[in-house]
Amino acid sequence: MLKILFSAHRDRWSEYEQPLNAAFAAVGLAADLALDHSPDEVDYIVFAPNGPVSDFRPYSKTKAVMGLWAGVETIVNNDTLTQPLCRLVDESLTDGMVEWVTGHTLRHHLGMDTHIKGQDGVWRDDSFPPLATNRPVTILGIGALGAACGQALARLGFPVTGWSRTAKSVPDMRCLHGEEGLIEALTAAEIVILLLPQTPETTGILNEKTFSLLAEGAFIINPGRGPLIDDSALLAALDRGQVAHATLDVFRTEPLPPDHPFWSHPKVTVTPHIASTTRPETAAKVIAENILRGERGEPFKYLVDRARGY
Amino acid sequence: MLKILFSAHRDRWSEYEQPLNAAFAAVGLAADLALDHSPDEVDYIVFAPNGPVSDFRPYSKTKAVMGLWAGVETIVNNDTLTQPLCRLVDESLTDGMVEWVTGHTLRHHLGMDTHIKGQDGVWRDDSFPPLATNRPVTILGIGALGAACGQALARLGFPVTGWSRTAKSVPDMRCLHGEEGLIEALTAAEIVILLLPQTPETTGILNEKTFSLLAEGAFIINPGRGPLIDDSALLAALDRGQVAHATLDVFRTEPLPPDHPFWSHPKVTVTPHIASTTRPETAAKVIAENILRGERGEPFKYLVDRARGY
Repeated sequence: MLKILFSAHRDRWSEYEQPLNAAFAAVGLAADLALDHSPDEVDYIVFAPNGPVSDFRPYSKTKAVMGLWAGVETIVNNDTLTQPLCRLVDESLTDGMVEWVTGHTLRHHLGMDTHIKGQDGVWRDDSFPPLATNRPVTILGIGALGAACGQALARLGFPVTGWSRTAKSVPDMRCLHGEEGLIEALTAAEIVILLLPQTPETTGILNEKTFSLLAEGAFIINPGRGPLIDDSALLAALDRGQVAHATLDVFRTEPLPPDHPFWSHPKVTVTPHIASTTRPETAAKVIAENILRGERGEPFKYLVDRARGY
Repeated sequence: MLKILFSAHRDRWSEYEQPLNAAFAAVGLAADLALDHSPDEVDYIVFAPNGPVSDFRPYSKTKAVMGLWAGVETIVNNDTLTQPLCRLVDESLTDGMVEWVTGHTLRHHLGMDTHIKGQDGVWRDDSFPPLATNRPVTILGIGALGAACGQALARLGFPVTGWSRTAKSVPDMRCLHGEEGLIEALTAAEIVILLLPQTPETTGILNEKTFSLLAEGAFIINPGRGPLIDDSALLAALDRGQVAHATLDVFRTEPLPPDHPFWSHPKVTVTPHIASTTRPETAAKVIAENILRGERGEPFKYLVDRARGY
C-alpha cells in the first residue's frame, strides 16, 4: 500500500480526494491517500503551494513530489527539496489555455470592446479589422502551452512567431530563439502573448526597451506569470500609445490589490488568474499514471530540471 | 471589349474601380468597367443594393448579374431580373466570418464580459467555464459560411451541430435537417449561431417555441440576417433567463434605430453589421474569374437558385 500525502491548500482536498482515489484505482495502484502520514513513510507527495509542507527533509523515503500546478517557481528554489519534482502537464490545462488565449487574441484583433462597452445607440461601422492573415502574433514561450496556442492561432490564419530561450521547432509557426531572436520576434508584433516560465532570465522580459520594438498600438496578453512584465514600463507604454491594451491574468501579487493602477487603467483588463485551471479529474489521471511509471521503474514524465528552473 | 456596368452605392466605386480593373487584367479580360453604359450594350452588371439599377429589363444582352454581397434577398424577388444572378462567395468573407464567430463564441463561452466590464478591484475567481468539449454549439445554416465556422469551432473542441433545411453533410459536425432535425439541433444547445439565408421559411426561425428548447442560459449569436429572429420573443427569452445574452450583428432595420430596446438591454450586444465584410481585392478576383467562366462558356459559379431564394 503506497502512502501518498496530499499537501495543498485545505480547500483543494474536497476537490481532489475522490478524483485521485478513483484515478489510483483505475490504474491498479493500491494507495492510501491522506492529509497526514508519518513523514518517513511517505512514498509520494501530491503538492501545491499554500499547503502544510515546506521542509522536505523529513520525507526521506519519498520517491517524487507531484505538483498540481504547471508553474513550479514557488518550489523550485526550495533547497530542502532533493526528491524528483514533476510539473503537472495536463491536456485539459492546455485545452483551457488555448481557449482563453484564442478568445482574447480574437477579442483584441476584432476590437470587440468598442461594441461591448459602446451600447449607446451609435452605429460604429466605420472601421474593420484586417484579416487575421495580416495580423502578426508573437508568442514568447513555446512549451506545451505556447505551442498549442500558437498552432490554434495559425489555424485561424494568424502569422505566428514563437520565441524560446533555446532553439525549438514547432510546426505552423516561425520559431526564433536567443537574444537576437527576441528582438526579431517582437519587432512590429501586433499581439504579444506571454507563456514563458518564470526564471531569472525571463523576469522583466517585456520592459522599456522591448516594448519599444512592438508595432504602434500593439496588444499584450499575459496568461503566463506576472513578473515577465515590468509593470511600470507597461503603464508607460500604454500611456504613450505604444501598447493599445493589455489583458493580464497574472500578477506579481495575487489577488491583485484593489488599489493597483491596473484595475483603474482604461487600457488594462485584469482577469483573476483564470486563463487555465487544473481540472481535478484530468489532473488526477496524470498524477496516477506518473506514480505508476515510478512504481514500474520507468522514468517520471514532466520531471523539472532544477538548474534550468522549470 | 466587354462592357461591364458597376451598379452599387456611389461610395463603392472608389473602393472597387481599381481592384476590379486589376482583376480583369490579371485574368486577361478586356473590359470597359463604367458607372454608365447604354443598357442594351451591357455584358455584365456588378451589382449591390442601393445603386441606380432596379429594373433589369433594358439590359437585354446582359449575360449575368454579379452580386457584391453574399446575401441576395434584396434582389432575388425582383421580377424584372431574368438574367443569371451570382452571389459573392469570397474566401476572405468566409475567413472574416470565421474570425468574428469564433471570437464571439469564445467570448460567451469564457464569460469574458464579466471581466471586461468588471474592472472594479474585485478578484472574481470563483467560477470557471467548462472546457469547450462540454459546451454544445449549434449552427443554423451550414452553407459556405456556416460550415467554415462550425469546423473552426470543432477544431477548438466544441461539439458542433449544424442544421440546414435540406440534408447536407459537413465534416467534423453532426448534421441535421428538416423540421424534426431543427428541434433536435436546438434542444439543450448552449450557444446558437445563425448563418441561414433569409427566406420565407427561415424568417422568425428563432421564436417563442424554439427559444424554449435551448439550454437554460444559452447564448445567441446572429451574424446572419435580422429577420431570422422574432425580436419580441428574444426579449422575452432574455428577460426570463432562458437566453443569457444575445450578440446581434444584423437587424430588421439597419442602422438599428437609437431608441431600439436592443441598445439599452443589458443582455444584448449590438454590433453594426461588421461580422464580415467584402474586401474589394478578393471580391474583384472572384467576380473576374466568374466572368471569365461565362466568356469561356463554362457554367457560372455561385449561381442563385431563384425558386429556393439563395
